[in-house]
Amino acid sequence: MAGSTYGKIFQISTWGESHGAALGVVVDGCPAGLLLSADDIQVYLDRRKPGQSKITTNRREADQVELLSGIFEGRTTGTPISMMIRNTSQRSADYGEIANCYRPGHADYTFDAKYGFRDYRGGGRSSGRETAGRVAGGAIAARLLQEFGIRVTAYTLSIGPVKIDRDKFDPSVILTTPTGMPDLDASAMAEAYLADCMRNYDSAGGIIECVIEGVPAGLGDPVFEKLDANLSKAIMSIGAVKAVEIGDGIEVSIRQGSQNNDPFRMKDGKVIKTTNHAGGILGGISDASSIILRAHVKPTPSIFSAQQTVSRQGEDMELSIKGRHDPVIVPRAVVVVECMAALTIADALLLNVSAKLDNLKKIYGR
Amino acid sequence: MAGSTYGKIFQISTWGESHGAALGVVVDGCPAGLLLSADDIQVYLDRRKPGQSKITTNRREADQVELLSGIFEGRTTGTPISMMIRNTSQRSADYGEIANCYRPGHADYTFDAKYGFRDYRGGGRSSGRETAGRVAGGAIAARLLQEFGIRVTAYTLSIGPVKIDRDKFDPSVILTTPTGMPDLDASAMAEAYLADCMRNYDSAGGIIECVIEGVPAGLGDPVFEKLDANLSKAIMSIGAVKAVEIGDGIEVSIRQGSQNNDPFRMKDGKVIKTTNHAGGILGGISDASSIILRAHVKPTPSIFSAQQTVSRQGEDMELSIKGRHDPVIVPRAVVVVECMAALTIADALLLNVSAKLDNLKKIYGR
Amino acid sequence: MAGSTYGKIFQISTWGESHGAALGVVVDGCPAGLLLSADDIQVYLDRRKPGQSKITTNRREADQVELLSGIFEGRTTGTPISMMIRNTSQRSADYGEIANCYRPGHADYTFDAKYGFRDYRGGGRSSGRETAGRVAGGAIAARLLQEFGIRVTAYTLSIGPVKIDRDKFDPSVILTTPTGMPDLDASAMAEAYLADCMRNYDSAGGIIECVIEGVPAGLGDPVFEKLDANLSKAIMSIGAVKAVEIGDGIEVSIRQGSQNNDPFRMKDGKVIKTTNHAGGILGGISDASSIILRAHVKPTPSIFSAQQTVSRQGEDMELSIKGRHDPVIVPRAVVVVECMAALTIADALLLNVSAKLDNLKKIYGR
Amino acid sequence: MAGSTYGKIFQISTWGESHGAALGVVVDGCPAGLLLSADDIQVYLDRRKPGQSKITTNRREADQVELLSGIFEGRTTGTPISMMIRNTSQRSADYGEIANCYRPGHADYTFDAKYGFRDYRGGGRSSGRETAGRVAGGAIAARLLQEFGIRVTAYTLSIGPVKIDRDKFDPSVILTTPTGMPDLDASAMAEAYLADCMRNYDSAGGIIECVIEGVPAGLGDPVFEKLDANLSKAIMSIGAVKAVEIGDGIEVSIRQGSQNNDPFRMKDGKVIKTTNHAGGILGGISDASSIILRAHVKPTPSIFSAQQTVSRQGEDMELSIKGRHDPVIVPRAVVVVECMAALTIADALLLNVSAKLDNLKKIYGR
Repeated sequence: MAGSTYGKIFQISTWGESHGAALGVVVDGCPAGLLLSADDIQVYLDRRKPGQSKITTNRREADQVELLSGIFEGRTTGTPISMMIRNTSQRSADYGEIANCYRPGHADYTFDAKYGFRDYRGGGRSSGRETAGRVAGGAIAARLLQEFGIRVTAYTLSIGPVKIDRDKFDPSVILTTPTGMPDLDASAMAEAYLADCMRNYDSAGGIIECVIEGVPAGLGDPVFEKLDANLSKAIMSIGAVKAVEIGDGIEVSIRQGSQNNDPFRMKDGKVIKTTNHAGGILGGISDASSIILRAHVKPTPSIFSAQQTVSRQGEDMELSIKGRHDPVIVPRAVVVVECMAALTIADALLLNVSAKLDNLKKIYGR
Repeated sequence: MAGSTYGKIFQISTWGESHGAALGVVVDGCPAGLLLSADDIQVYLDRRKPGQSKITTNRREADQVELLSGIFEGRTTGTPISMMIRNTSQRSADYGEIANCYRPGHADYTFDAKYGFRDYRGGGRSSGRETAGRVAGGAIAARLLQEFGIRVTAYTLSIGPVKIDRDKFDPSVILTTPTGMPDLDASAMAEAYLADCMRNYDSAGGIIECVIEGVPAGLGDPVFEKLDANLSKAIMSIGAVKAVEIGDGIEVSIRQGSQNNDPFRMKDGKVIKTTNHAGGILGGISDASSIILRAHVKPTPSIFSAQQTVSRQGEDMELSIKGRHDPVIVPRAVVVVECMAALTIADALLLNVSAKLDNLKKIYGR
Repeated sequence: MAGSTYGKIFQISTWGESHGAALGVVVDGCPAGLLLSADDIQVYLDRRKPGQSKITTNRREADQVELLSGIFEGRTTGTPISMMIRNTSQRSADYGEIANCYRPGHADYTFDAKYGFRDYRGGGRSSGRETAGRVAGGAIAARLLQEFGIRVTAYTLSIGPVKIDRDKFDPSVILTTPTGMPDLDASAMAEAYLADCMRNYDSAGGIIECVIEGVPAGLGDPVFEKLDANLSKAIMSIGAVKAVEIGDGIEVSIRQGSQNNDPFRMKDGKVIKTTNHAGGILGGISDASSIILRAHVKPTPSIFSAQQTVSRQGEDMELSIKGRHDPVIVPRAVVVVECMAALTIADALLLNVSAKLDNLKKIYGR
Repeated sequence: MAGSTYGKIFQISTWGESHGAALGVVVDGCPAGLLLSADDIQVYLDRRKPGQSKITTNRREADQVELLSGIFEGRTTGTPISMMIRNTSQRSADYGEIANCYRPGHADYTFDAKYGFRDYRGGGRSSGRETAGRVAGGAIAARLLQEFGIRVTAYTLSIGPVKIDRDKFDPSVILTTPTGMPDLDASAMAEAYLADCMRNYDSAGGIIECVIEGVPAGLGDPVFEKLDANLSKAIMSIGAVKAVEIGDGIEVSIRQGSQNNDPFRMKDGKVIKTTNHAGGILGGISDASSIILRAHVKPTPSIFSAQQTVSRQGEDMELSIKGRHDPVIVPRAVVVVECMAALTIADALLLNVSAKLDNLKKIYGR
């Protein structure tokens, strides 16, 4: 139940600060026998790592994963998988000034309130670098889901006022556009918008959408552990996310029941829904339609223009942030959303096995 | 970690079905020494109970709480507080038809997928009646928060297209309008809209807002157990909620950092924010501003007009739902939102005590 | 994680005090589809209930279970099963004197230290009556294990200095002797010994042994969640237990490895051990031999002879306990040991399902 | 709840195998502001490390701890503390033979049963080397307890038939005798006994005792989370432990209540017990007397004499184990017992803070 641990059966525990020696994650509860290589993880980390385009921080980190335990002869052993990423490009000198004041929109003040002091270098534990551990863990969850035909895909839906055109949706460009948008035109417009923001020493927000395909019906739980409740927590636990939607989300409040209910029909011997307003979850449990969610991300709080704040000593002051910062969090957060979703679905997949006696009989052979 | 348990230290475990003998909740981890009476709980349950106006189901339930343990001489003992509410107005005959098919927008199909069968009477465990246990537990959490000057207030922000006018915001009418709106004019318009819906055998959705005042800075956690992450899970675990916002929520994605950051200033010797776009939480930890959240609620899925669905035997069919149903879930869900928020804050309050050594020294006297 | 909740997947939450209105338990995580009746539970509660012989308290309690939720058409639904037992024979007047002082060997002093005050009537939450909830929950666990051919059997091994003769071991008399001994002669001697104790206003202790047959190999975990570690916690959590042994237990410290190791052999195509010093668990994981454990139980602390103690006001005083007390805890604790063991094994059975990928493929069909 | 995580608030997650690249632990939930250096941890690891005397394995490991996160300017930050120890002296060639068969008394067979295969090199995750992570985490717990005047001391009570003489008890020699005995004469006799065992290609067991002084009254819980229940689990989770006693332990079953109850008296204005048969815990809650426990440890299962076993292919065979093994586990397990006890007490210390309203008012200032 400690604050850096996520998941009930498929569990990750992350550690590390922005400017410490390293960051990492321990994955426990991954089933034994899964083929897994360092490459399976590195490909996810590479999507998150900084310095890849003009619209990400120019901090250079190789973000090379070291696999330290839990794998034997290419397969998971069922025991903890420890992974570590060395920090190599710390420039703590950049952060001297913020040691003594509270950056607006950041956790500086609240860390001091909670813990009495804080590691101010690069935001310490509250830095976005913390998500490297999540992504390493999420890559393993995604690898596990792959065995069951479950695919998690996230992408940028909007940056500032620039939205994708759903008619131009092309999943093949998600990983190639610097914005993470599945629409080349929108992506180009978003880049232009971001260039503007940067010129004005300002930053932008955006929306990330995530689609989870191939989830069997029956995952999740009817009360507090609803699958959508757990997904919401997972996504809202990513720094800068301020709203989460499931399915049609914020659209539902103005609908009537006859518009919002998804009719059931039989198709090829299976129960299907003819629409998917619900976003793949009914009563907290997956219904075998695609699960759809959206995360609303605030603009990067680190901006170079002057801001009002207070010092640790309690004096009003003006702050101009230096250092290296993404002008928008969204593109690099896409893979984080994907990984938090994968971790949540993997956990639900494992938990669901004991939901009915018939399942147990398949395992224990009676 | 079972699905009907919520909270880490201040923990509730709910039980019961819509048409079973009773519903209830066990509250464990409430600190010893809190003055608590059955009335403290009943007043919350009365806000949730059905049959109070034309726009709620006419199922009549006294929803009288029975306090079975954990109180001695008017105070909590620190051991489990068990509460039970007898069901008295079951009319299971109404549900004969749905035993054999899947109501659109309901959990019937997903329960069958997960468990192999289901208690179909009134939705069984997936019924909104399950929230009676949450409210009984949340009333105790609210009582505890009161000791520390923390107040949780939820109200209806909109029903269908009818929104409140923030200039007419009057908290004193929240508990008197049938809609739960803090604006008498909007409430009257919403009632008219609902009457229309009912005439058309249809239903409506809406938005609930919740404000938590008096929370000290420092509650919550920086990574997975962010206070906003836990609030999101708590609120999304309420049936029919499809989106959750914290602070300015869905507005932030189109803002720039300079617009969205809340400046810090000193006031009367305290650190304050001059705006509160963040909604009282920075980096997952409370900042002593009001915590603000919104829940987007879908229209009641039980509608009387004919709908397409399938039978358990896998045949397409048409269904016309009978029984007693609220035309809108929002008004009765207001107190549920309030209670889930109170439970989450109470848990964070207890957890935070061990965050720093200085706190422990105050307790253990060294 | 609250203190009255036990189990990770198969979870029970007990509540209630000795002299409150009722006691009970909520069982969550029991797989759906298990045939279960109130009788299945009552037969276990009847073994624990008081007033059955000269060597148990003459407090009369029907201990009639009321099944309140989680069962539909005779089968578990997969949702919480709530059970309640009304207290009917409280005689709180007996406890007036102990309100103001600390009974030696009891939790009176430590409750005051922890909570600031206590429900002193009959020991409140620290009473042995609390175990009624464990037994009701354990009965369901035992019912589940039965589906997989797993049988849990506990019995009295000794009372005071009187031990059973293993050559006379007769399991068929466990439920008929007032002592719970599987040896009629030893049982008669133990009864005589207890009569002596009672004459001297004194009490006796003893040892309970528990054998779990039919457990498949592979349950448990290699590090902190070792099956023997969880069994030890489960057994030690029963009031008055002061030592727990697994397999040969306290005998092993004076053995040499060549004497203590259990050789493996093949028999009928299966791996077996030719001896079972280990008691069915190797490295924290079941090995398919019988699991064997022993609980050492202290003498009932409530004795009628005068004892030295102190008052709540901090004055030395002498106390002569009144009321109704068992002269020995062991016979009624036998079924509690059995139930705690059953709960632990049931939980391990459910948890183990996700240990390897092959198991998941059997469920999710790929 | 994953198997390599221990603790509720003060939580450790260990990882690593005997012959992997490294072992480690992540400590989460340690309060912020505690002075902590790598030396504080290294001194504990040095007590556990191999190769220190004739009676431990001659595997040479520096067991040098690397502190990777969670410390800033010499103090804990309240965020995860990650520690790593590189393996340097793996000789996996020694283990070629056991890849294909099951060593008696080891977890080889049960790992295969649970996970389908295993990392056989040096026992993989079931190796005693796993405890390095526990010791690194326990060292921090001990450091925290020190702030509150709580001291945990473990030592060897017996090796095989050789017991210490309590009249010669000298705590100052615990860390200097190769046996961990607090009695020089007994230690010399035990060494002679072990030399004999080694000559006969055999091994020995023993008993470890642990005393915890300075624990305030009120830690622990009355039902499942009894302090003695958690201590039992903690100790039984150490490989090779087969029995745990609290206080007088196995002696209590033959006592009468009048002999076993500890009288209360006032002394210097405080409630004390004039005897301590209970071992410092009443009703699951600490009573401010010393907490006393004993662990019974089986003889090292790895012996050089020939043993009967079976191959993975299911054929009877004979096995002669090679490699480097301690002839007795006890001396190196002393510090592991100490650390598991420290972790358990630290967790109870943090959990107890929210037990009563008065404590919360001291923190939140009302």
